[in-house]
Amino acid sequence: MTVRSINRIYQLIQPDLVKVEENLTALTRVDFPWLSELLSYCFEGGGKRIRPAVTLLAGQFYDYDLDTLLPMATSVEVMHTSTLVHDDAIDKADIRRGRPTINKIWDDETAVLLGDYMFARAGQLAADTNNIRVVKLFAQTLAIISSGELNQAYNAFNLKQTRQQYIARIAGKTASLFCLSIDSGAILSHAPEPSIEILHEYAYNLGIAFQIVDDILDFTSTEKEMGKPIGADLTQGTLTLPAMLLLERFQEDNPVKRLSENRMARDNIKQAIEMVRNSSIIPECYRVAAEYSARASRRLHQLPDKPCRQALIDIADYVVSRKK
Amino acid sequence: MTVRSINRIYQLIQPDLVKVEENLTALTRVDFPWLSELLSYCFEGGGKRIRPAVTLLAGQFYDYDLDTLLPMATSVEVMHTSTLVHDDAIDKADIRRGRPTINKIWDDETAVLLGDYMFARAGQLAADTNNIRVVKLFAQTLAIISSGELNQAYNAFNLKQTRQQYIARIAGKTASLFCLSIDSGAILSHAPEPSIEILHEYAYNLGIAFQIVDDILDFTSTEKEMGKPIGADLTQGTLTLPAMLLLERFQEDNPVKRLSENRMARDNIKQAIEMVRNSSIIPECYRVAAEYSARASRRLHQLPDKPCRQALIDIADYVVSRKK
Repeated sequence: MTVRSINRIYQLIQPDLVKVEENLTALTRVDFPWLSELLSYCFEGGGKRIRPAVTLLAGQFYDYDLDTLLPMATSVEVMHTSTLVHDDAIDKADIRRGRPTINKIWDDETAVLLGDYMFARAGQLAADTNNIRVVKLFAQTLAIISSGELNQAYNAFNLKQTRQQYIARIAGKTASLFCLSIDSGAILSHAPEPSIEILHEYAYNLGIAFQIVDDILDFTSTEKEMGKPIGADLTQGTLTLPAMLLLERFQEDNPVKRLSENRMARDNIKQAIEMVRNSSIIPECYRVAAEYSARASRRLHQLPDKPCRQALIDIADYVVSRKK
Repeated sequence: MTVRSINRIYQLIQPDLVKVEENLTALTRVDFPWLSELLSYCFEGGGKRIRPAVTLLAGQFYDYDLDTLLPMATSVEVMHTSTLVHDDAIDKADIRRGRPTINKIWDDETAVLLGDYMFARAGQLAADTNNIRVVKLFAQTLAIISSGELNQAYNAFNLKQTRQQYIARIAGKTASLFCLSIDSGAILSHAPEPSIEILHEYAYNLGIAFQIVDDILDFTSTEKEMGKPIGADLTQGTLTLPAMLLLERFQEDNPVKRLSENRMARDNIKQAIEMVRNSSIIPECYRVAAEYSARASRRLHQLPDKPCRQALIDIADYVVSRKK
């Protein structure tokens, strides 16, 4: 399988992704210079824009109505960015996408209020679709994400989590936003209900695959590549799939176990990363991610045979192969 | 002028306010015991429920449609509670309504995520009205509130604020939610546009009066009465009307000025409170609040002569006379 680069996959929607960027820039034009500066800083940070991309692609199977798809594609990116701003404040993270975080440059207060403001703007954009079903999905998704984050905080350093709990957790904190992005694209282009269902199934599995790979990269990548420190999950006590497999395989002498007993003993993080890298855990995690990725595309052939269909399949391949 | 007690004013809508309470309790029934506990803690704290009350009262002039008014009345109370949860985390406040805050019992992380979750639930309730105009107002209001809070943070300890800036700030952080509460009640009961406008004017002025009195009470009340420490605004560097008048009157030797030069010199807060209490500043602030309160009710006589009209007038009187 040759995996196409993300830019080649995006080709189909490139002009419209440019419009999403323009919408993001338009959001920064507010009558309060400091707020304008904060918003510009957030949106200039880049990112793959994968969520708006899948909204637009999901919208191409039926009536590609940019009047509603563009605000929605912008909305999901703004919502994503807001959750990052709050997460960084909560995690006391200093770096994101290779640049200091909002809470680092300014403070936690600023990050919390800015995140709130961006949630609101994301909500306004969702409401700009004039589609109440989409608005309901939007609000529901924010509830699921924050409840998923609360669940993650609650289970920090809890070694007795099952793999099922892990999947449920990443479904809440990550897959739900992929579902919003894709379901809304389908709904706004007036896809028939069975097609919406197929795309929803795609979105859920894509989101799970995406997050598993994120969790893998937190062990295997470098700070330079990721634009943020490696081992961040263990630092927060978040047990991801690689850490869970490490706990299963080395039941006696285990750095993750020691870390949970003494959270200050940070040398265990480095050791856990080493042990995971030098075992078959990483290939096994990739196998799980690839399963979800395959499951994502499984029923896409039932949708109209349009170029966007292949692009979605390519994205499912991409999320597993990506290096950052 | 005899001011009626808030319970007598609420008589007209008492059975429906009970339903709002039931809705709040229903929100706590989630499949995650800790989250359920957090939500119960927030909603059991009480409060005047003035925002849902005015939504319901504004809805009584025309078609009193409880199917949409009840979710909306619940929505504004949930949004209000979320902003308090975030504010307390940001201000590092320990006490609210006589009980420890969420950030005090748990931590800042919990408060941020719980606030996010409640914003989302408030949004879901607003969307339950199936009225896209109301949903747009909801999202717009959250943007205005958080932008107002950012403005307040930005201007902390800034002595060069004008009274106009103060009014603009409290319009954003307080009056906007009164406007949402009342405008949505009017819209959902199919009030004609001129009536919506009259009620909007009422809401704006009511909100300003309400916040001025809040700012007065932060100087004149007691911790026991308020359920939270007095002098909290000065501690945060928030310059309210009493502090601004104190700065105007004592231009040379002024405790607020000294506090802005050395934020650690907390004895200046106590001294500022004493000076404000022993001057004519408080009556003057009440005069300003009473002006806004009068302006609130000024055009209500143009609305249908129904009992809810007198109740709104009574609420405008109440917000100026209230002791907590």
